[in-house]
Amino acid sequence: MQDSSQAAVMTFLNEVASEFPKAISLAAGRPTDLLFERLDHAALLQAFVDYDTYFAKRTTGIASLARLLQYGRTAGIINDLFVQQIQNDENVSASADRVVITAGCQEAIVLCLAELCPQSTDVALVCNPTYIGAAGAAQSTRVALHPLSPTEPDLAAAIEDSVIQLHRQGRRARALYLIPDFDNPTGRVLDESQRRAALAVCIRHRVVVLEDNPYGMFRYEGCSVPPMAALDDAGSVIYLSTYSKTLSPALRVGAVTLPETLFGDRPAREALHRALVQRKSFITVNTSQITQAIVGGLLLNQQCSLRSWVQPSLVRYRNNRDAMLAQLQVTFAQRPGAIRWNHPNGGFFLTLDLPFCVDAEEAIRCATNYGVIIMPMAFFASDRSQDQRIRLAFSGADETQIRDGIVALGRYIFDKI
Amino acid sequence: MQDSSQAAVMTFLNEVASEFPKAISLAAGRPTDLLFERLDHAALLQAFVDYDTYFAKRTTGIASLARLLQYGRTAGIINDLFVQQIQNDENVSASADRVVITAGCQEAIVLCLAELCPQSTDVALVCNPTYIGAAGAAQSTRVALHPLSPTEPDLAAAIEDSVIQLHRQGRRARALYLIPDFDNPTGRVLDESQRRAALAVCIRHRVVVLEDNPYGMFRYEGCSVPPMAALDDAGSVIYLSTYSKTLSPALRVGAVTLPETLFGDRPAREALHRALVQRKSFITVNTSQITQAIVGGLLLNQQCSLRSWVQPSLVRYRNNRDAMLAQLQVTFAQRPGAIRWNHPNGGFFLTLDLPFCVDAEEAIRCATNYGVIIMPMAFFASDRSQDQRIRLAFSGADETQIRDGIVALGRYIFDKI
Repeated sequence: MQDSSQAAVMTFLNEVASEFPKAISLAAGRPTDLLFERLDHAALLQAFVDYDTYFAKRTTGIASLARLLQYGRTAGIINDLFVQQIQNDENVSASADRVVITAGCQEAIVLCLAELCPQSTDVALVCNPTYIGAAGAAQSTRVALHPLSPTEPDLAAAIEDSVIQLHRQGRRARALYLIPDFDNPTGRVLDESQRRAALAVCIRHRVVVLEDNPYGMFRYEGCSVPPMAALDDAGSVIYLSTYSKTLSPALRVGAVTLPETLFGDRPAREALHRALVQRKSFITVNTSQITQAIVGGLLLNQQCSLRSWVQPSLVRYRNNRDAMLAQLQVTFAQRPGAIRWNHPNGGFFLTLDLPFCVDAEEAIRCATNYGVIIMPMAFFASDRSQDQRIRLAFSGADETQIRDGIVALGRYIFDKI
Repeated sequence: MQDSSQAAVMTFLNEVASEFPKAISLAAGRPTDLLFERLDHAALLQAFVDYDTYFAKRTTGIASLARLLQYGRTAGIINDLFVQQIQNDENVSASADRVVITAGCQEAIVLCLAELCPQSTDVALVCNPTYIGAAGAAQSTRVALHPLSPTEPDLAAAIEDSVIQLHRQGRRARALYLIPDFDNPTGRVLDESQRRAALAVCIRHRVVVLEDNPYGMFRYEGCSVPPMAALDDAGSVIYLSTYSKTLSPALRVGAVTLPETLFGDRPAREALHRALVQRKSFITVNTSQITQAIVGGLLLNQQCSLRSWVQPSLVRYRNNRDAMLAQLQVTFAQRPGAIRWNHPNGGFFLTLDLPFCVDAEEAIRCATNYGVIIMPMAFFASDRSQDQRIRLAFSGADETQIRDGIVALGRYIFDKI
């Protein structure tokens, strides 16, 4: 979470794969390319046309061609369809006037952090390790982050500790960035009681939860846990969404959804919405109506639910995960207990605990000499607590690559220990 | 340029037009809807397909469907075509590795201001009045602005004065944001000697010029003046571009072009490029490849020059401007000298000097009672110097609306004086 560490991650994600084109990448948390089969030229056009037709019926006084090509509404044009989709798929209730459609979820995080933490004494809490984009958003908006203790297993207690610690320093925790479902980078899921306990602490201290949910649709078994936004009746959760994993990252369409009130105060929520819209206008003016229309058309065609749309990728990701878990079992069978990993019920990632440290140099050595690209967990951490862990993504590669990648990783690890 | 003033402008631009749907808007600097005639569904698809085909030949090892739908290169994918277009159309020489394609020019301003002014003592210079988006970008990145004196007619002298004044305060001017061609909001064009003199001062004090050129392609008569980027051989000009006026605002595609060296230092420019790319990754990840591909396809089809593409809109804007100038002449003939205006040779705007102050309330009164929406120049100013001026846009309305709008404006003004 140091600037230099973020730079290292960016270099790693953006360049290592192209520097080692023959290496198998288990590094980047990309959706599978197979998801795009149904988004060929004709499908993109059809979605655009379908939304254009729908939009025309709802738009008066604007000439046909200008509807989608002129400067657009800053808060977005597909808010009504988006709201239906998160209600249908994620059980999150909202209304269109509480939504800001953003240029991907990254802009959503930027807007919220900057708006919730305007003072130099304001602080946003994050898990340790946390999603690198949250740390980057904080850096780009000059918002201070405070990592929760990685040794306190109880999230609510960790939040409480941090709030009190910051208070003693004359600082104030204003927001908590969190991925409760299949966390990036760890794959961890918070159960309902952990969510409720964390919410209670946040409500007591007026800390706004920024609940980021890119992986909630990708559960491979077990019962889904309600999003914190669905458990929140106090107005403490801002829900962050993206279409990068369900549809395509190239659309760059995400969203902020505000609660009905902000800690019981409806005018405060309305003021926050206006402030977010104004801030967005000064960063990207408005999200492209062309890509919004493609999302809108796909939502229309899917009756505002992407559950069946993502079904083929769910099958694939589950098979990928199973292939990775099975190969980890085989590869490390000869040294039981030396290497440990978690068994995520969804998402894109799992975590591997190693008996030695892995930094950028080690990862490059592993890519160069063993042909597999891995992600040091230290990249996502604010301290040394994650030095002996790596993140493995099973979303982007195919089963053969995953098996070969784990075998190669095994060679690297056995040569080290 | 106060926060409250920016909020007022945003409200005005975004909401007044919808609050007064029957009023004629001379407020927003939008491109004409007629520009979009050639960008119907089929044309957008064709452009996308053409770029996809072109891109396929230049991209190896990536499966067909993933080329444009996966996470993309942060610096952009159409940099090579963009570079040819600004060379052909604007006489600005560049190379693809000096370019970052952005989510509209607004993001380009945000990236540059934040990166060039990292310290709390760093300041960006702006004209007074200046484009509201520059003030908004500064606000969103917490960068301090220093307005050049509106009473010093010599730009170079005004820059020199400001640099010295700031230096005395222990602050440092790092950047100068400028629209040299058909300025928004004033319509002013800097001649070549003014540009060279301003460049010389900026080079002496190591102030980077952020040259924003949205209107350079829209000259209706007279010889074009070379962009400052074309006059710069010291590495002092960053060139900012947008396709919002030439193609469509809904594409949200703009660009930053760095000079070959930063004040003679090539590694410093390379480092700045890397820093801008990293910063962009933390705000919008990458610019949508779908909208980039549409721009790319249109550039391919136009042999990387938009000169003939914009020709129909040039004709229209010139006729609009002529209609506005002619009606101003007719309407205010009975009171010669009381109302004055400039005669811009291009761009979207002209400036009207009035014998009374116009603020947001007055503009709303004018819209409500006279049916014409105008833009108080005070919205773009950091002081009271612009209180008796308004900005009139002749780009978006048609000739009849413009004539009727000026007649209505005349009634409003004559009722006031």
